[in-house]
Amino acid sequence: MTATATPTSPPPPRPTIGIVGIGAMGLPIARNLHRRGYPVVVRDLRADAEHEAHAAGMGVCASPCELAQRADIAVVVVVDSAQIDVVLFGDGGIAAQPAPPRRARTVMLCSTIAPHDTAAFAQRLGALGIAAIDAPISGGPARALDGTMSMMLAAPAATLAPWRSLLADMAAKRFEVSGTIGDAAKAKLVNNLVAGINLVAGAEALALAERLGLDARRMAEIIGASSGASWIFEDRMTRALRDDFEPRAAARILTKDVGLATALAASVRQPTPLADAALARFRETVERGWAELDDAAVIKTYRTPRP
Amino acid sequence: MTATATPTSPPPPRPTIGIVGIGAMGLPIARNLHRRGYPVVVRDLRADAEHEAHAAGMGVCASPCELAQRADIAVVVVVDSAQIDVVLFGDGGIAAQPAPPRRARTVMLCSTIAPHDTAAFAQRLGALGIAAIDAPISGGPARALDGTMSMMLAAPAATLAPWRSLLADMAAKRFEVSGTIGDAAKAKLVNNLVAGINLVAGAEALALAERLGLDARRMAEIIGASSGASWIFEDRMTRALRDDFEPRAAARILTKDVGLATALAASVRQPTPLADAALARFRETVERGWAELDDAAVIKTYRTPRP
Repeated sequence: MTATATPTSPPPPRPTIGIVGIGAMGLPIARNLHRRGYPVVVRDLRADAEHEAHAAGMGVCASPCELAQRADIAVVVVVDSAQIDVVLFGDGGIAAQPAPPRRARTVMLCSTIAPHDTAAFAQRLGALGIAAIDAPISGGPARALDGTMSMMLAAPAATLAPWRSLLADMAAKRFEVSGTIGDAAKAKLVNNLVAGINLVAGAEALALAERLGLDARRMAEIIGASSGASWIFEDRMTRALRDDFEPRAAARILTKDVGLATALAASVRQPTPLADAALARFRETVERGWAELDDAAVIKTYRTPRP
Repeated sequence: MTATATPTSPPPPRPTIGIVGIGAMGLPIARNLHRRGYPVVVRDLRADAEHEAHAAGMGVCASPCELAQRADIAVVVVVDSAQIDVVLFGDGGIAAQPAPPRRARTVMLCSTIAPHDTAAFAQRLGALGIAAIDAPISGGPARALDGTMSMMLAAPAATLAPWRSLLADMAAKRFEVSGTIGDAAKAKLVNNLVAGINLVAGAEALALAERLGLDARRMAEIIGASSGASWIFEDRMTRALRDDFEPRAAARILTKDVGLATALAASVRQPTPLADAALARFRETVERGWAELDDAAVIKTYRTPRP
């Protein structure tokens, strides 16, 4: 008996993914999906980012509107709400496609922004027949590239259903917060509030150890093995001790996130004294010209106090 | 040929360990060493603690002075500097043994106290021919009992040399900070400063999540798997979410430790804005009558603000 190769049917065509904003996170997300076999089209304001995507075999669109008509879903990975507003509702924005929307009927919002902005964007999109997924991400470029980043998710189940396989390919760790748009944005800010405080706490402690004449590397090793251990301490203070402030996460980003978190808390009259103190340190880091350094640079505010 | 049992020489006699203060940490330390074959004698002000040690087969001493004459080393595990002062230099204290010291010529100081107190005690003991080991401990009763707790160590190498095997039996994780008495106390305070901030940060974040109407358990799970993760968050917030404030570590302890840490920082003019904010929350916890609850109870100050 001879084994004959049974011709298999071709895999079902993958949806085309449109990615707006191919910076530190957007580009690795695009590369990851492209490598996994999704057709990917992109849009960015920076020509060099678009050239890089083009060289990697992705399509480049002249506007978010064009992207929405070439893709089945638009993934928005720009920096803040002001940029999202332009991408969605500006000239040549996603909302500018002829109604009813011709192709991309779903927009995934991956930036870390104020939850009320997420909710407002979703409402305006909804009025145009476009669904939104509240999907902030974390984990950094390396994990975006291999699909192991984390994603917090909030959207009605029916909105998520067609995209579960895509979401799994983008983010190995997915946390479904609730079915209410804005709740994932809230959860992201609450996490980043803790991360921001823990980072400043580590800087405060190591700078104190240095001032006390203790061996700071030994001190970091002790903290890492004791009750002071935290994920961000391990990650950032290792760099701070080497005076390596090459940005993996620029200081301005966590400054923005902790500011959004304290504003959110203030909106429900919940006190956040530690986050307020951490935010003051991050703001000082930015004011003293270290906004584009790694956020571990917050230790510099402790090492050399402002006169 | 018949195998004959070769008589082996008996193991070298183990030193007798004297433990002063057999409370939450002292008693499990005593039990651990006793189980490992050390003769153990103890001293405590509370008769029931002494009965418990006696029932377990340990010797009970009428005073620290008697303990110092029956043991080869005195391990002091009382709460604070005031108690250590009495144990060492009070009536019937360790220093009251006839000079030169007849037996225990080494005192191990395991409490978390101000580094300048540690140094002052060591100096006064040294004048009497008694060596000190600066040896603060951490890890909780369960790890004290099985010998897996952590210990920070500072003492001249010659002081430590005879006790390395004892130290290894007491604490699986030992961090030698330096040869200077007081440096281990400093390192302990720096670690506890971070732990205290991280704990309050976790409470601040979860109370905020609750106020925002998020599912707090889901939020804790997200933080535990994200950039906000910390050892103390995982340990304490798990309890706080169950409203379980049965004390494993009473709130007054970390209040004391963070207060000592900020005082130490102030003594070298190093700012600690986050620790100051955390200390205010711990003090409020104590003032509102929750000093003897678990330190996770700091979340109660956020859940029900003081009017």
